[in-house]
Amino acid sequence: MLTITSKDNANIKNTVKLKNSSKFRKKSGAFIAEGVRLCMDAMYSGAKIEILFATENAVQKYEQDFEKLSNYADKTFIVTAPIFAIMSDTETPQGFLCVIKALDKIPEFDTIKRNSKFIALENLQDPSNLGTILRTAEAFALDGIVLSADCCDIYSPKVVRGSMGAVFRIPFLICNNIVDFLRENQSLVSYAAVVSDAENITEVSFNNPSIAVIGNEGNGLRKETIDYCNHRITIPMSGKAESLNASTAASIIMWEMVK
Amino acid sequence: MLTITSKDNANIKNTVKLKNSSKFRKKSGAFIAEGVRLCMDAMYSGAKIEILFATENAVQKYEQDFEKLSNYADKTFIVTAPIFAIMSDTETPQGFLCVIKALDKIPEFDTIKRNSKFIALENLQDPSNLGTILRTAEAFALDGIVLSADCCDIYSPKVVRGSMGAVFRIPFLICNNIVDFLRENQSLVSYAAVVSDAENITEVSFNNPSIAVIGNEGNGLRKETIDYCNHRITIPMSGKAESLNASTAASIIMWEMVK
Repeated sequence: MLTITSKDNANIKNTVKLKNSSKFRKKSGAFIAEGVRLCMDAMYSGAKIEILFATENAVQKYEQDFEKLSNYADKTFIVTAPIFAIMSDTETPQGFLCVIKALDKIPEFDTIKRNSKFIALENLQDPSNLGTILRTAEAFALDGIVLSADCCDIYSPKVVRGSMGAVFRIPFLICNNIVDFLRENQSLVSYAAVVSDAENITEVSFNNPSIAVIGNEGNGLRKETIDYCNHRITIPMSGKAESLNASTAASIIMWEMVK
Repeated sequence: MLTITSKDNANIKNTVKLKNSSKFRKKSGAFIAEGVRLCMDAMYSGAKIEILFATENAVQKYEQDFEKLSNYADKTFIVTAPIFAIMSDTETPQGFLCVIKALDKIPEFDTIKRNSKFIALENLQDPSNLGTILRTAEAFALDGIVLSADCCDIYSPKVVRGSMGAVFRIPFLICNNIVDFLRENQSLVSYAAVVSDAENITEVSFNNPSIAVIGNEGNGLRKETIDYCNHRITIPMSGKAESLNASTAASIIMWEMVK
């Protein structure tokens, strides 16, 4: 097992770029996950782990997990704590970090069942919101998530961490345009989430293959998308209130879809 | 109107401490809110604004809001952009920051009505979660929030910002101990949120003065608190899932209470 002590090592430099640049993640077809739990989640989900980096402390502290992970990963490097800190996105790193091949768990839109439930996100910008939505979608056993290409990067370290590993397990698809996606998947009944002039979500039964479509944090859905959807739904709120946080709204909609 | 150009000015030093230290906020009985919208929210809610700080750029850009706010605030100081940056908690400050007296909008537990709905938080630690919960509680028109003293500080800049100003409007009470609070407010029917051995929340009617009790992100509620509550409730989830984020769980519970 090789030990890397220089921050100029190509593997280290690449990994730092994977942490910081969504463009580079896209180009490389890879991303990073950090922490014992997330790295193990990646392995158990069958993701391809190209590199495992671990500090000597972490190798000793998490001996069994390290053995499993290093057997599973294509390559393993031991790094010093200062080198690890350069790659890390957290304040108190546990000392495990994986470079993982981009995932390919695409939802099965060809075999949609009557009770299939999906969520689509259009131009969602906040990685914390996306992480929470992935986590909630898994908790409520949704069948998959569709993201427009202008959403924040699902492979950003914040999303991966915030999802608590759900990103490895829940099927997702990135499409250029939500309307085009809906047009190509007409067996799905689409519900645009809006703030007014819509059916109260408590009165919607979702007893068909359904996809709820959620928009940008500040601006909501594009008019074109709202117009294309089969239904408009809304979460009723008291008058004086600021609208809900996007991940809260998405969570309540998913809950109403599946409960 | 005075202009402050030195970071050693006592007002600046105090404000930086208010930003960074919950101990100092408690001792001073004051906190900060930043940004045009939040400062205006504070004013409209009737909060006592002890100091308004604004940069010259902001005074010009938000002329009308500045006039209203500076008339309302006890004192106004113009500061240079570098001085403002020291006090600011955001990356791209708008140039408005207020020092505000601690709030006193306590829920009215003496006049509880049949449809009164409250939420209690025990040892909640994440300021983002608390901010989101305040925002959601306002959107769903809850009557108030009870926090145990060991929750994260409701006056931290992250909570104030994440609440989108709801902190100024929704009544809240900080108590030493949730069980003591419940003991003193027996007209409230209490529902402990737990992950198993509980009533499915979809089968609970909440048709009485209700308080849902939510625990710490990692450890949930203390056993003593669960035992004291009148009911245990749970949000059913699929087997493989990580539990929900605390603010997501709280949001779904509030939604089920009021809808």
